[in-house]
Amino acid sequence: MATAPAPTLLGSTTAGPMKWWGWGDPGHTPTVTEHALEFLQAELGDLGEPRPPVALEDVALPESALPAAARDALVRAVGSDGVRDDREARVSHGRGCSYFELVKVRWGKLDAAPDAVVYPETPEQVAAVIDACAEHDVAIVPFGGGTSVVGGVEPLRGEHSAVISLALERLASVVALDEQSRTATLQGGLRVATAETTLNASGYTIGHFPQSYEFVTVGGCVVTRSAGVQSTGYGRMDDLVVGLRCQTPIGELVVSPTIPHSAAGPELRQLVAGSEGTLGVLTEATIRVRPRPEVRRWEAFMFRDFQGGTEALRELVQSRTAPDVSRLSDEEETRLSLAQAGESTGKKVLEGYLRLRRYAGGCLGVFAWEGRSSDVAARRARAVRVIKRHGGIALGAAPAEAWAEARFVTPYLRDDLLTRGVLAETLETVTTWSRLHELHDAVANALRTSLSDQGTPPIVGCHVSHLYPSGASLYFTVLARQKRGEEIEQWTAAKKAAGDAISAHHGSITHHHAIGVDHRPWLEREDSPVGIAMIRAAKNELDPKGIMNPGKLLPG
Amino acid sequence: MATAPAPTLLGSTTAGPMKWWGWGDPGHTPTVTEHALEFLQAELGDLGEPRPPVALEDVALPESALPAAARDALVRAVGSDGVRDDREARVSHGRGCSYFELVKVRWGKLDAAPDAVVYPETPEQVAAVIDACAEHDVAIVPFGGGTSVVGGVEPLRGEHSAVISLALERLASVVALDEQSRTATLQGGLRVATAETTLNASGYTIGHFPQSYEFVTVGGCVVTRSAGVQSTGYGRMDDLVVGLRCQTPIGELVVSPTIPHSAAGPELRQLVAGSEGTLGVLTEATIRVRPRPEVRRWEAFMFRDFQGGTEALRELVQSRTAPDVSRLSDEEETRLSLAQAGESTGKKVLEGYLRLRRYAGGCLGVFAWEGRSSDVAARRARAVRVIKRHGGIALGAAPAEAWAEARFVTPYLRDDLLTRGVLAETLETVTTWSRLHELHDAVANALRTSLSDQGTPPIVGCHVSHLYPSGASLYFTVLARQKRGEEIEQWTAAKKAAGDAISAHHGSITHHHAIGVDHRPWLEREDSPVGIAMIRAAKNELDPKGIMNPGKLLPG
Repeated sequence: MATAPAPTLLGSTTAGPMKWWGWGDPGHTPTVTEHALEFLQAELGDLGEPRPPVALEDVALPESALPAAARDALVRAVGSDGVRDDREARVSHGRGCSYFELVKVRWGKLDAAPDAVVYPETPEQVAAVIDACAEHDVAIVPFGGGTSVVGGVEPLRGEHSAVISLALERLASVVALDEQSRTATLQGGLRVATAETTLNASGYTIGHFPQSYEFVTVGGCVVTRSAGVQSTGYGRMDDLVVGLRCQTPIGELVVSPTIPHSAAGPELRQLVAGSEGTLGVLTEATIRVRPRPEVRRWEAFMFRDFQGGTEALRELVQSRTAPDVSRLSDEEETRLSLAQAGESTGKKVLEGYLRLRRYAGGCLGVFAWEGRSSDVAARRARAVRVIKRHGGIALGAAPAEAWAEARFVTPYLRDDLLTRGVLAETLETVTTWSRLHELHDAVANALRTSLSDQGTPPIVGCHVSHLYPSGASLYFTVLARQKRGEEIEQWTAAKKAAGDAISAHHGSITHHHAIGVDHRPWLEREDSPVGIAMIRAAKNELDPKGIMNPGKLLPG
Repeated sequence: MATAPAPTLLGSTTAGPMKWWGWGDPGHTPTVTEHALEFLQAELGDLGEPRPPVALEDVALPESALPAAARDALVRAVGSDGVRDDREARVSHGRGCSYFELVKVRWGKLDAAPDAVVYPETPEQVAAVIDACAEHDVAIVPFGGGTSVVGGVEPLRGEHSAVISLALERLASVVALDEQSRTATLQGGLRVATAETTLNASGYTIGHFPQSYEFVTVGGCVVTRSAGVQSTGYGRMDDLVVGLRCQTPIGELVVSPTIPHSAAGPELRQLVAGSEGTLGVLTEATIRVRPRPEVRRWEAFMFRDFQGGTEALRELVQSRTAPDVSRLSDEEETRLSLAQAGESTGKKVLEGYLRLRRYAGGCLGVFAWEGRSSDVAARRARAVRVIKRHGGIALGAAPAEAWAEARFVTPYLRDDLLTRGVLAETLETVTTWSRLHELHDAVANALRTSLSDQGTPPIVGCHVSHLYPSGASLYFTVLARQKRGEEIEQWTAAKKAAGDAISAHHGSITHHHAIGVDHRPWLEREDSPVGIAMIRAAKNELDPKGIMNPGKLLPG
């Protein structure tokens, strides 16, 4: 179909690379404090000697298997500077950010590496790359920010002769801004952080801040159904997306950005959202934006227990007064947060106050409102009434602002924890309010039992961070002493125990991390065999040779 | 997958039949007033003699083509009282409520009739009926309320030997109510009105009030992506649905009601929503409910023109202050509403007042808020500030309440208009705010030009009734003198002109009436050929013999 004309052209930007062996900007690697390390040693046992990653030149890397004819075809598609097969390009596109991947890359033992990395600059070049790969039997792994924590960008070749990573970083323009309709049309490889900065300059915000915010791309967020810390207020990426363009092996799939919602058959955008590169390459998405907020107000509250806190959250969302950020840690995560805060005077005063109020061992709630000043004040007042009615006591802005400032640092810290011998991983699920506590306990117990049985009793904290009228997400953080030499087996067993518990208790295997490789074993139970058959049929139609991201999403 | 246990069993209900030749309860047929008729004659020209519908026994009805073996298999599936092939059953399931269908049935000339009507009582019986039909090459048309205005229940047999209507009226139970999660699990054949009444008794509401409210079923609303007059506040049915069960020819497709939202691949519920019976039969849906409102407050405002009124609506929805009902008539629809109101003193006073304020020829806005009393007052105050800033002047509750009271009567009136020789039909679309007026003018002009060129200049009114942050719906009402003997050709030409204008101006071919038979010619342009290929592949997988509602939704 014809596409609407672009009202405004804002400009473009090019993203830089992530550290080859871990998270983020190579020049920025915060270390775990001595205080935190002492706490972890006391809780988890002796962590042994630090183990830094190997050097890039020590990573075991097979020769590129890309046939010369395929390479020539790719060069014809994107030019010679658009095809790289040097060590750095191949290694840095050889993994995402799952625990399994980060552990292995630090050892220099990638399971696989792309035979080349290809950098198209236009949707037409993306189509040409797909054609070349279809002709030469080469698998394609679309690569955005490389932040997948479920193996979504792992360079699996499946039954094909070779595999490329299709890097989207050169498709990184803001195509259009429709101020009247409040939508922005963005290319798939544009980093969300760059889009946000660009739109801020025009007075708008996307309001999408996943923990991977600094590196994640627009296309990656759409095809994985990303959620960010403000998604309770702004909506998840699959709520924000209005239109999209996806290059598939049989042609371009277009969902018009000029149709907010309709009754014209099954909703194609919700088929492409969540498709994880298995149908094609998302080259463009039109998403909803809002005016840049005048004010943002953070505030922390302590609840006596997780039960009371979740009842407050439930009433907030069901009465349509939920703050834009609504986040509640359980008792164990609250204890972990306070422990990590060090031994400052402020912390001691706080703990004394909480003991006095009999809230020691309570649950920390972090909330934020943003928008126009008067609107924020009114919404905050309504929400605080609900929070207090459920026993929340106000701790002021500082603990919430501290959390907000630290939220993008955590992925960097994980690298240092791995160096220090700590298993550090997260997983998430979602269910209805009536089943939330049962699921919470089942998953936490499964993780504790599995890791304790392996001789590495863990800390398992959890928070609720995304609210829906009918339920909420549960996000678990696991810390344990690594079993040296058995790091992969150790987490494989714990992850399986958690996944089985989620599945048995009717939660989703993933609230916002997607399926990738790691969650495939549980998808059929969640979607029913008929549902899987339907998705597979759609995939086979669009990708008859099976070259698009093989080994991801659908069960083997 | 396993299904969650049902928290509460509320009971069941059985729906009664609709009038065989027209809308609604056979005992209730309001007539067009003499005043309204005079107005229409003055506007549209001489309407000629009334033409009432033929008698039931005069409807031309072919012999049932159902093979004896197929009939036996169906009787085995549902019992002998579950298979009807008498005249009344076949005729009353031989049509929905599109203009084409109503015109023809009144003449006694159905295009087709089902060879039998089958009434399963359980999801297992639905599966057995599907199996029997697959074995005996019989097409299935799922039949809920029979209110489709796009030919969605037309008994087309496609390439098959026979066709049955699968009547869902015996699958009409409230299965469960989860008060904590605020969801209700309802069987597919349950009328929305019955569900609403039952849930009201427990203190809840669905808040879904399409004009077809009295007859429409839960399953019908889900598979057609229905929207009601309060959908701006409550969400459309495809927003409300959380879980569902769909019997397909290859087995049951289950979307778990225990997962509010997830990142586990493409969203299956948005594939089944909008599938219009072409994938299978929706036997159960779990939908969100809210507490029954304490108060509901109606209020009307007059805007100087359509442009000013839509700017008010845009600001309301984009600032998250939209009333639950937000409805704005354009100048022509406002004129029509005032004309239909008769010559009361109240109306004269109103018109005098509007002339004085220079709002004669303005646009009527109808708004409503509902919920807790204090909440309604606060939300109304915020909205009224916006409305007044855009020039809206308050007319009080009466005009809005009058509209609300009349809204379910309109379909009855249409029957009398048809008797009186008036073409009365509606169509709807949706687009972004930046394109709304262009689309409005294009569609209205296409309808006026087509009907005027045929010698029957129409009245074409329009209203906005569903608001989204990025756009809004446009709902057109067309009244014209019927061209006697060419009624079908007359509307076919006008409908084609309107559909082509919608398509050329990037609107959706349907905002909430679905595709059925009538909108198929425009779907491929809207979804792109790749999108259609994907839906077709999913359908072929679930329905390999093509027996599920052939000739609907997908282009031929």
